[in-house]
Amino acid sequence: MKIKKTERIAAIVKMLLDNPNNIYTLGYFSDTFHTAKSTLSEDIVVVKNIFEKLKLGKILTIAGAAGGIKYIPYLSKDKALTFLEELCRQIELPERQLVGDFLYLIDLIYDPVYTRKIGEVFASVLDYSRTDYVVTIETKGIPMAHMTAAAMNIPLLIIRKNIKVSEGPTVSINYLSGTSGSIQSMSLSRKSIKPNSKVILIDDVMRRGGTLKGMEELMKEFNARVVAKGVFMEVNPGEDKEIKDHTSLIHMIQKDGQRTIRVNEDLFVHL
Amino acid sequence: MKIKKTERIAAIVKMLLDNPNNIYTLGYFSDTFHTAKSTLSEDIVVVKNIFEKLKLGKILTIAGAAGGIKYIPYLSKDKALTFLEELCRQIELPERQLVGDFLYLIDLIYDPVYTRKIGEVFASVLDYSRTDYVVTIETKGIPMAHMTAAAMNIPLLIIRKNIKVSEGPTVSINYLSGTSGSIQSMSLSRKSIKPNSKVILIDDVMRRGGTLKGMEELMKEFNARVVAKGVFMEVNPGEDKEIKDHTSLIHMIQKDGQRTIRVNEDLFVHL
Repeated sequence: MKIKKTERIAAIVKMLLDNPNNIYTLGYFSDTFHTAKSTLSEDIVVVKNIFEKLKLGKILTIAGAAGGIKYIPYLSKDKALTFLEELCRQIELPERQLVGDFLYLIDLIYDPVYTRKIGEVFASVLDYSRTDYVVTIETKGIPMAHMTAAAMNIPLLIIRKNIKVSEGPTVSINYLSGTSGSIQSMSLSRKSIKPNSKVILIDDVMRRGGTLKGMEELMKEFNARVVAKGVFMEVNPGEDKEIKDHTSLIHMIQKDGQRTIRVNEDLFVHL
Repeated sequence: MKIKKTERIAAIVKMLLDNPNNIYTLGYFSDTFHTAKSTLSEDIVVVKNIFEKLKLGKILTIAGAAGGIKYIPYLSKDKALTFLEELCRQIELPERQLVGDFLYLIDLIYDPVYTRKIGEVFASVLDYSRTDYVVTIETKGIPMAHMTAAAMNIPLLIIRKNIKVSEGPTVSINYLSGTSGSIQSMSLSRKSIKPNSKVILIDDVMRRGGTLKGMEELMKEFNARVVAKGVFMEVNPGEDKEIKDHTSLIHMIQKDGQRTIRVNEDLFVHL
């Protein structure tokens, strides 16, 4: 089958995007397209250039005999800011107000159009080199955590709020939930984490950080090290919190009965 | 900014894949690349041809003034079968056996490498034209349902097993869970589904179908029509079930203490 240069480039982009952060060797492309490695090197330069020019993500080329290419999902500061500001505008709509400080968000945080980008923002601002798992707790944060795991190409783990027979032996801890104001338990399958793993925690809404603190403690039981903590929306940042060194995308500030939703300004110091 | 033909094709593929099932007009591409529509039509033919040749998914071109192009994720019968057979081999490993007929699956069904493809299989075998929502029930089916929603470019809804304050007013029903053998309740936010919607149900494991039957009944409360039901793994198909017209990817047959995992042979009659 004869494949033209333009066609080869289209196919290479498809393959790269299907498996973010996965290294494709020149040999693999050479076998697939029956094309010389030198020609493929030129194709890859084309892909790399346009991804840089239009800020479509990073293309990393690895030199040497075992060399190759991988696609790293990445939102530039401009693109991330535009997206998060649009999210803030949507979250601010008065009809989202439920009882207390709860907001109706599931039309946003379950929709793949949004979660895909939320995942790319987390993958752009959190350092996930040498990370073994993305860990979340059920339920509302699962879609965004899953898309974060997909962008990073790392397996996801979901902490359960009860012990389930379909997970085998589990490890569980108790924690004080800021949402319900009561003692709850969380559990994770014993064999789901390999010893000495590094993990990134993701959660959707953080108030005082009790849930994330519980997640940190559960990770200790697995001898896993938490290398980053990503929060979609943090309520009243700066107040007394149970955890530190977390990265929030959006801040919800509640003061004197007024609510403001805005992008975390410190988010982009790394971008 | 001068963009070469090869670069333009790489960028077009990236844009298409970022938003499956979303129509991009020639005008949009023309504005983005400052290129004549006639030239872009040629570029699109290139993309369409190679996606067909290598079975990378479908590229649909829409003719006319409002015409354009969209990418439809699609796994060919060969690719889907290869993937599902590999999954069956992994699921069959004896160390996955838990108590009863439960299997440890979370390393597979939470991993984006697998869920992305499971989502593409569902999008290849279920007709989702004119579907408004993909609906699942917490927890283990969420990642695969979310990837199905992502492939179809349709919002996801997650039915909760308890009533949550962060979802506002809810509608709930009781159902007989085959997993626990007890009466349980499921609920969904009142305003999450627009009236007269069409929905696709997705669940991870089906025994007698009690959970899916409950989901169907909950949908009736919303005046929503269930147009398809996708199940990742069905236990003992052919036995008495509470639902019909569902589509299972994988069958688990348990007989005389023996367990067999195999791909549903009827799956590919449509492919």
